[in-house]
Amino acid sequence: VVMLNLTSTEKYAKVAPVHETIEAFEAGLDSDHELISPAMKYLYAACKLGIPHCNFTPSLSKVPALEKLAEKCGVPLCGEDGKTGQTLLKTVLAPSFAVRQLAVEGWYSTNILGNNDGKVLDDPESNKTKIVSKQSVLDDILGYKVPDHQVHIHYYRPRGDQKEAWDNIDLVGFIGERMQLKVNFLCKDSILAAPVALDAVRLLDLAKRVGESGIQREFSLFFKSPYHTNGERPEHDLFKQNSMLQAWIDKLGRKSREVSPIRKAAGA
Amino acid sequence: VVMLNLTSTEKYAKVAPVHETIEAFEAGLDSDHELISPAMKYLYAACKLGIPHCNFTPSLSKVPALEKLAEKCGVPLCGEDGKTGQTLLKTVLAPSFAVRQLAVEGWYSTNILGNNDGKVLDDPESNKTKIVSKQSVLDDILGYKVPDHQVHIHYYRPRGDQKEAWDNIDLVGFIGERMQLKVNFLCKDSILAAPVALDAVRLLDLAKRVGESGIQREFSLFFKSPYHTNGERPEHDLFKQNSMLQAWIDKLGRKSREVSPIRKAAGA
Amino acid sequence: VVMLNLTSTEKYAKVAPVHETIEAFEAGLDSDHELISPAMKYLYAACKLGIPHCNFTPSLSKVPALEKLAEKCGVPLCGEDGKTGQTLLKTVLAPSFAVRQLAVEGWYSTNILGNNDGKVLDDPESNKTKIVSKQSVLDDILGYKVPDHQVHIHYYRPRGDQKEAWDNIDLVGFIGERMQLKVNFLCKDSILAAPVALDAVRLLDLAKRVGESGIQREFSLFFKSPYHTNGERPEHDLFKQNSMLQAWIDKLGRKSREVSPIRKAAGA
Amino acid sequence: VVMLNLTSTEKYAKVAPVHETIEAFEAGLDSDHELISPAMKYLYAACKLGIPHCNFTPSLSKVPALEKLAEKCGVPLCGEDGKTGQTLLKTVLAPSFAVRQLAVEGWYSTNILGNNDGKVLDDPESNKTKIVSKQSVLDDILGYKVPDHQVHIHYYRPRGDQKEAWDNIDLVGFIGERMQLKVNFLCKDSILAAPVALDAVRLLDLAKRVGESGIQREFSLFFKSPYHTNGERPEHDLFKQNSMLQAWIDKLGRKSREVSPIRKAAGA
Repeated sequence: VVMLNLTSTEKYAKVAPVHETIEAFEAGLDSDHELISPAMKYLYAACKLGIPHCNFTPSLSKVPALEKLAEKCGVPLCGEDGKTGQTLLKTVLAPSFAVRQLAVEGWYSTNILGNNDGKVLDDPESNKTKIVSKQSVLDDILGYKVPDHQVHIHYYRPRGDQKEAWDNIDLVGFIGERMQLKVNFLCKDSILAAPVALDAVRLLDLAKRVGESGIQREFSLFFKSPYHTNGERPEHDLFKQNSMLQAWIDKLGRKSREVSPIRKAAGA
Repeated sequence: VVMLNLTSTEKYAKVAPVHETIEAFEAGLDSDHELISPAMKYLYAACKLGIPHCNFTPSLSKVPALEKLAEKCGVPLCGEDGKTGQTLLKTVLAPSFAVRQLAVEGWYSTNILGNNDGKVLDDPESNKTKIVSKQSVLDDILGYKVPDHQVHIHYYRPRGDQKEAWDNIDLVGFIGERMQLKVNFLCKDSILAAPVALDAVRLLDLAKRVGESGIQREFSLFFKSPYHTNGERPEHDLFKQNSMLQAWIDKLGRKSREVSPIRKAAGA
Repeated sequence: VVMLNLTSTEKYAKVAPVHETIEAFEAGLDSDHELISPAMKYLYAACKLGIPHCNFTPSLSKVPALEKLAEKCGVPLCGEDGKTGQTLLKTVLAPSFAVRQLAVEGWYSTNILGNNDGKVLDDPESNKTKIVSKQSVLDDILGYKVPDHQVHIHYYRPRGDQKEAWDNIDLVGFIGERMQLKVNFLCKDSILAAPVALDAVRLLDLAKRVGESGIQREFSLFFKSPYHTNGERPEHDLFKQNSMLQAWIDKLGRKSREVSPIRKAAGA
Repeated sequence: VVMLNLTSTEKYAKVAPVHETIEAFEAGLDSDHELISPAMKYLYAACKLGIPHCNFTPSLSKVPALEKLAEKCGVPLCGEDGKTGQTLLKTVLAPSFAVRQLAVEGWYSTNILGNNDGKVLDDPESNKTKIVSKQSVLDDILGYKVPDHQVHIHYYRPRGDQKEAWDNIDLVGFIGERMQLKVNFLCKDSILAAPVALDAVRLLDLAKRVGESGIQREFSLFFKSPYHTNGERPEHDLFKQNSMLQAWIDKLGRKSREVSPIRKAAGA
């Protein structure tokens, strides 16, 4: 059994004293503390049951208390927020601008989607949780603060279960010359997410079998805000993330193609 | 001194017997053989003068005879066809589709440009040379033949010195679901090309100083159709190309940032 | 009965002496003249049978001989080449640039489609017929020759029965400042064409009933290259075409909504 | 002298009792009433001085009291909110969908701009004024309420004095089939606005000379929310607006080309 959190995005939350230690957290549970969210309760239950846990949403769950509890209970964790559409492309394009020394002066991203996920994100508090998660990737990859990076998400009913992203990127090249790149992605969120979630689940199961516990940084490939241990920076570059995962798999004496049941499904 | 070929694209050519050996080539030069192009003559002169040579165009010059001659003369070579706009993005996006198991069902690319380069490419014979160079990259990266990959180039006067590329990519994901990605790049070819050409020239000079000769596969990062030695496949993945170059530079005991004077120019 | 030509585009043809008079045409029929195309034979048959005829394709059929024959036989005609996707938008946008005094410096249009229609248009001779038909509209609407107007059509298998058009328009405004407009139309040719063809058929039937014959210029709304009588210029502006049709219908004492069965189908 | 209001957008306002009669308005002026905005004060001054007035902004100024005062003082008025970029295209495309019976299921519009105008619109109250003005046009033209029509405006510094609009339009055609149209306009607001403002000023001067006063509905062509007299609906269709203006000019015995000094500037 692996627990996979696919619930709707919760309202924006930050780590508070009640989340710092296992004792404080359990006292909070007993007193029905308002800062202990459903996402955290699920993770707590997973730890107690010894079940590996993947947080595929941007909701805050891996607070210090639960990170410690997971290690104590021998439970491997990964998350957070599946990297599927627009952010996936961001972590692909940004490294290439770095390689070619193209400075990113601005990146404007807008998203439209028409399903229940979109409705929830129309709520300002949930929207904030999602946008904070989406915005973090660029600066880390590029090594500087992008002067104007915006992410907008809107519920747009006609799009239905599909999703559409439009990005405008302003680049500054040699001798200060400006260029623009526009990316329009007509995608399907569930179709992009499902194989990633399946891979995460299978790998968590594997991690559990080989005795891993706590944060699985090697699974960063799958997430917008990959979990990372204290003192380390998150790795956002898709290609470095892929190398990390391949190395982990190779270490286990397995070949990458055995891990992925998706190749066949994708018709590749 | 380093020789950099930046001339207009020549008409499409293939390796013929006159290009196979140094003897045949030199006999061809004496008889003014019609299959010995200006690009080849320049490379021949570079070899004879011991000057490193970079072919930044898609014109055929590194024929077997001249590859041997370069090695014999201690001349390092790199090429061919600078990877700047649309193809640069192709070698960035394609690896990400491979990582995410998204099958590429079709890739339609069109380019418009309005300068002299565009006029030359309006000639069907030069156009073919360029398109063959642009088309090679996808299948190598993806590991299968893309069912429908088209590249079109048109001279469009209002675009002037600027360049514009529009790409449509058809993707097949999980359980055969279709998605589309559109990329519109409003770029400036010379601005993208100049720092790449400068880096190639500086690195060729460095290669010459450390005693390298013949094909410099480590400089693949800069080219659409990177030179590669017999029996090896060209490396098209931008991120693997970057790793190859970094490793070569590290081997020489230098840090990458010393090699690139472009970072400052780009304001990064 | 109304005859509607929906066959594949024929190769490019021009009016020749054999097409000039009824006598020459009929002699050509008897001798199986190579310049008498299938599209012309169908129209000839329609005239002889007294059946109204609509040429929904860009193939040449309304030659002088058959225009005279249609009048003689009391047969109303309309055509040619149904105005559905990209050209429809062209005849909408161009009038607005004229109203706002925005000069069109260039208009680059490309089309991809993956059905049999697309395959036929991959043949250079059929492609020419189509492109000549598509290119005619702009200059007439704007009142000057657009310096660079290009139309490209490519067979692209992954698009299947759907069609996609990408247009780039370069505009020059006040004090010579340049602007750009990009239009990406993801449409379905048959869905756009069917109601237009149905309307044309119903209106031809109506025209026949009220005793009209020969070219029905009032039906210009439906076509890329609307038929027009000697000495008149074709009307390409969608809104003027609509006014012409409404006036014709009003003259017949009918209200526009009775003519169009499409409103209901479109869910409007 | 003609007064042209080009100030920054004021916060959202509605007509209140103090705006209803000249007496109430003047009493409000004397008591420095908080609901009398700068835009209204300018218009009041214009009326009192007998100067024609054009409100090129979306700020509320033509309240009932001032409409009456303008008539009384023989002052011609026009406004409001210059129709320049995205809304211009909207009033061009929407009529064509109506002509072709394509139902608009959704229209998502986003705008980015980086000048002071953009900064002001980042203030939620000014933004609301602008968006209400931009949203009104569609339903009037189409004759039904578009199920999902969104307009977003964001200050995006890298765009500077230029402006960019991206529109996605969802269409439903024959037998309920869905299609999409995407429009990306890289424009320059001031360049689009200046000739329109100049034309409005010149025409107001002309109106004054021929004795007109009050709302000049014939100048609707220039505005997003054209002034209209009681009991009339605003006319938003660009082509009908153009016909109204042409008719007015023709009535004055002038040809349209004499009115517009812009044709020459645009190089047309």
